[in-house]
Amino acid sequence: MSEAAIIDGKAFAARLRQTIAAEVAALKAEHGLTPGLAVVLVGEDPASQVYVRSKGEQTLEAGMHSETHRLPAETSQAELLALVERLNSDPAVHGVLVQFPVPDHISQAAVVAAISPDKDVDGLTVANAGRLASGLPALTPCTPTGCMMLLRDQLGELSGKRAVVIGRSNLMGKPMAQLLLAADCTVTIAHSRTKDLPAVVREADIVVAAVGRPQMVKADWVRPGAVVIDVGINRIPKDDGKTRLVGDVAFDEVKAVASAITPVPGGVGPMTIACLLANTVLAAKRLNGVGE
Amino acid sequence: MSEAAIIDGKAFAARLRQTIAAEVAALKAEHGLTPGLAVVLVGEDPASQVYVRSKGEQTLEAGMHSETHRLPAETSQAELLALVERLNSDPAVHGVLVQFPVPDHISQAAVVAAISPDKDVDGLTVANAGRLASGLPALTPCTPTGCMMLLRDQLGELSGKRAVVIGRSNLMGKPMAQLLLAADCTVTIAHSRTKDLPAVVREADIVVAAVGRPQMVKADWVRPGAVVIDVGINRIPKDDGKTRLVGDVAFDEVKAVASAITPVPGGVGPMTIACLLANTVLAAKRLNGVGE
Repeated sequence: MSEAAIIDGKAFAARLRQTIAAEVAALKAEHGLTPGLAVVLVGEDPASQVYVRSKGEQTLEAGMHSETHRLPAETSQAELLALVERLNSDPAVHGVLVQFPVPDHISQAAVVAAISPDKDVDGLTVANAGRLASGLPALTPCTPTGCMMLLRDQLGELSGKRAVVIGRSNLMGKPMAQLLLAADCTVTIAHSRTKDLPAVVREADIVVAAVGRPQMVKADWVRPGAVVIDVGINRIPKDDGKTRLVGDVAFDEVKAVASAITPVPGGVGPMTIACLLANTVLAAKRLNGVGE
Repeated sequence: MSEAAIIDGKAFAARLRQTIAAEVAALKAEHGLTPGLAVVLVGEDPASQVYVRSKGEQTLEAGMHSETHRLPAETSQAELLALVERLNSDPAVHGVLVQFPVPDHISQAAVVAAISPDKDVDGLTVANAGRLASGLPALTPCTPTGCMMLLRDQLGELSGKRAVVIGRSNLMGKPMAQLLLAADCTVTIAHSRTKDLPAVVREADIVVAAVGRPQMVKADWVRPGAVVIDVGINRIPKDDGKTRLVGDVAFDEVKAVASAITPVPGGVGPMTIACLLANTVLAAKRLNGVGE
């Protein structure tokens, strides 16, 4: 059996951004509509600053309106919620994203609840979880949305495939399962309480690992020919005292068994911001009654 | 191997109603709170009239406040929504239930959307689907809620069990899967597009059949010792030209394999109204800030 195809999420995301840029250009030309994303950062967390900068840059590169609101760490919850409210009603803004984590004196749940579901391009609100669970048009979380794009690109039709999602977080595992179910997969959700996890994973044509445990999924867990999507991003020590990033899948051994696999880094990761842009375009179209 | 225990849903529901009546008495005595359920019936569908009468009677028997609003078939959607709005803000009413189907000129989705999520004792609203999917306190649909009670009664701890739900409706299959997942089962959702459904069902410690296909689940689909919950209610012809009710499970053969099984009728069915009362008490407590 030959080695797995390595799914190049970086290249896929670059193509997706081009498609989005073309759609944005068409929306401007045909409808006078410029999709806009507002990102709010409270405090000066270094990693958050990097993410927020990337989001702003990629939004601009796609020809969209971008605004970044940098607030001091001592901003009160009321001030933050007031800004979210303003963005909710700003017709130039179609996506509102508050970068998490927020400082401890601010309730993350209160912030999420304040975001208009129609502008909730991170797919975090209870309203969007409910729409997704009910089969209604929703804004879905970016990472599982990106995983679905990679799977469709790799496999074409997903109907009838057996999919196992390892992990059941609200942001990743649960919406991933909903999206796979909507694509007519037979979906199993496994988690820390699952007994004989290797046997459960071996049933799958599609394995999505999203648990945050470095290299947990081994070669003998994977049915030969399965497609493996690795959502984990874990930093582990190297021999030289430095660190490196690995996923939840033991990549080097699983690639000898799977038919296709995402690497870490360079697999699912680059899809997330691209899907954020796609969600913003989708939100802009829905808010303006432009057909999808 | 001995025959399966037959799960007596009728007796369980009767005990549940007694427990609810005791809790209602305590809420009245200690908090001056009488849980109230309002049921709205539009038109004169004979089956709906029977259901609505049963709901009213059982609500009263539990010591709760019951009101039934019977509207003519020609009631406009606006009139119905206005009534729902009134019930939403009536402090004597903690559960609002509109009996479906409604006449064709009324949008069922619009009616559901009008019901306050805090009084949505049928668990139909997108808000409650989202709360359930997000692990937040929700009002959950009555039939899956009843199935969970029967399973807990039969099995005790559900953590780590493999559960297969056949069927993915918004009212039954999907919330059932969410409830089993919240109970730490490893959950698979199967449906019409599932390949080799018998093999998938054979993996399960818990089988929940909710597809509406008479006697579909056969003995050789069921792992010996599994617990089988049959949600189907199908009417099939008898030899004498009359009809009889059967479930989605071939009861006579499966009971030789399963460790426990619900009959049809008399299994899941009687649980539904009892869970409606339980949801109304839960809603009354939450709306009044009385601890659960």
